[in-house]
Amino acid sequence: MLNRILDSITPYSDEYLKKAIQRTSELIMPPRAVGMLNDISEKLCAIQSTLKPEVDKRAVFVFAGDHGVVEEGVSAFPAVVTCEMIRAFVNDIATITVLARQNNAKVVVADVGSRCDFKEKIIGKNEFIIKKVKNGTENFTKQPAMSRQEAEKSIETGFEIALKYIESHNLNIVATGDMGIGNTTPSAAIASVILDKDPSSIAGKGTGIDEKRWQNKVNVIKRGIELNKPDKNDPIDVLSKVGGIEIGAIAGVILAAAYKKIPVVVDGFISTAAALIAYGLSKNTHYYMFAGHLSEENGHKLMLEYLNLKPILKLNMRLGEGTGATLAMHIIDAAAKVISEVATFSQAGVSKGE
Amino acid sequence: MLNRILDSITPYSDEYLKKAIQRTSELIMPPRAVGMLNDISEKLCAIQSTLKPEVDKRAVFVFAGDHGVVEEGVSAFPAVVTCEMIRAFVNDIATITVLARQNNAKVVVADVGSRCDFKEKIIGKNEFIIKKVKNGTENFTKQPAMSRQEAEKSIETGFEIALKYIESHNLNIVATGDMGIGNTTPSAAIASVILDKDPSSIAGKGTGIDEKRWQNKVNVIKRGIELNKPDKNDPIDVLSKVGGIEIGAIAGVILAAAYKKIPVVVDGFISTAAALIAYGLSKNTHYYMFAGHLSEENGHKLMLEYLNLKPILKLNMRLGEGTGATLAMHIIDAAAKVISEVATFSQAGVSKGE
Repeated sequence: MLNRILDSITPYSDEYLKKAIQRTSELIMPPRAVGMLNDISEKLCAIQSTLKPEVDKRAVFVFAGDHGVVEEGVSAFPAVVTCEMIRAFVNDIATITVLARQNNAKVVVADVGSRCDFKEKIIGKNEFIIKKVKNGTENFTKQPAMSRQEAEKSIETGFEIALKYIESHNLNIVATGDMGIGNTTPSAAIASVILDKDPSSIAGKGTGIDEKRWQNKVNVIKRGIELNKPDKNDPIDVLSKVGGIEIGAIAGVILAAAYKKIPVVVDGFISTAAALIAYGLSKNTHYYMFAGHLSEENGHKLMLEYLNLKPILKLNMRLGEGTGATLAMHIIDAAAKVISEVATFSQAGVSKGE
Repeated sequence: MLNRILDSITPYSDEYLKKAIQRTSELIMPPRAVGMLNDISEKLCAIQSTLKPEVDKRAVFVFAGDHGVVEEGVSAFPAVVTCEMIRAFVNDIATITVLARQNNAKVVVADVGSRCDFKEKIIGKNEFIIKKVKNGTENFTKQPAMSRQEAEKSIETGFEIALKYIESHNLNIVATGDMGIGNTTPSAAIASVILDKDPSSIAGKGTGIDEKRWQNKVNVIKRGIELNKPDKNDPIDVLSKVGGIEIGAIAGVILAAAYKKIPVVVDGFISTAAALIAYGLSKNTHYYMFAGHLSEENGHKLMLEYLNLKPILKLNMRLGEGTGATLAMHIIDAAAKVISEVATFSQAGVSKGE
């Protein structure tokens, strides 16, 4: 199934990219005077094959999973917080749900791999899907986080959830989000392997660990990589050995957006680790990705540089949940409106410069 | 009149700042995990003396003026563009009007000092006020840009327009914007004087001049400063000798916001030059200012550092018109909603970290 998806992901329209660049040059402003908004406008035009792009039908997919490696003491929060926060998402009282409401984005919460036991499905304001690939990953300092089959299934699960929702709600933009206590550790592990960097230059303080725990976190990642020897040229191998279930599912969201030719706004550190997996599977996903923001988490800048993505927002955020990506949707919308609605020099009767 | 205004500008509520910092620590997120959004939230609470700040009633004041110094060849665009763009603003087809619509902000266009001859007042979708202090400034390489009385009147004019509109529309946030061909030159001159920096480290390419013209622009600023000898400790003196009418009026908007205890989002290079004037007149204006964005224009970073303001957006914009400030209102709104609407650990039953 995955191979069929990957084969169907193709570049955006080069024709519309050129038309959009021409249109930008005709708008009543000095050349490219709104900077990144001009760049974003043009990418949207190329993705949607139009000069009037729209990004008004929005959703953020918040995928949750748990991590065996938490038993190594890598997080400042107990693992039960994954379950508590899922409840807060569904009940519409968390930061992501507040920002999603502010940005007119639907919130789709999915438990793809937590250890939570939701005896009865939570009924709240937001969509909640339980589709577990596995009850949390294994501790990757002792064995692979999951099997190759489970890694593939995590991607396919994310793809299916996103595809279904994109189609049923006719979305024209999506954002990614995550929840999973400990998930900066597998994310840093993925990035260390794929970027071929020492974990100390990638791993950050996560939810707020001290220096000593950070050193432990770096060592945990090193041990996991040494034990499992993930092949950096095989994204599924990396995901299965040192990754996470929600990370695979987020990679699936990115694949679904690219497959449907709609923009996908990648959130911070965890989502960008997923983007590394998606990009490794299909370089063409790059045409559809926007980097929502630059996280405070150490290695995020390097990861975005590797992906050749410029972050839209730089607000020193480090929360995850899709918060940065969802807020960035408004900037992307501004860019869509600039190219669609600003008059041209000839329409407005404004004199051109030199 | 100006002195009475300045005496009435007082600090924000330290009590509510402290309450807000406490509230932030109780929200269901790792400590200060939304970074600048937390900082903005707290500043809003302190300004509005509440823990539920609101920034939903918005306007951007776009003030226009012309500049005698344009005859020295400092701009890539002809001076007539000031008039053409005023028309575009009123007719709702310019970048600022598109972004104001996207951000639910009213647009108030005021000609406070252009050389345009609007025989009949333009009737368009947006509010248009003609209240000219002077028909453009003088060429400051030959004489002061305006008299001390005119400089004071420019500030008072901006103050009055803003105050009236803030009160009649019950605004809870305002943004500043500018239009005036050539106005990066007086703005750079103001900043060079107040920051005591060489104009070459402040002046930028404006609407897009080449290296040769940029060198000329730097020399023009140097000559203006040498001839007029503005006193850096006397903001009115600086404004009158090397400033601009719309720059003075924008300083008036900032004073009006501080006077009414509502936040004011300062746009890019020109508006920040106005902020230097307002701040010079009353240090307490700082409590009410937000820096909307970091402009591409050279010295903007230094100016913001001088004012100790962190720019909210960094999108390589350099258009002016209030575009960066208006777009930043959405981020400020996000911050208001985070502190107002996100649940606390105890409300949500979420476990705290270490």
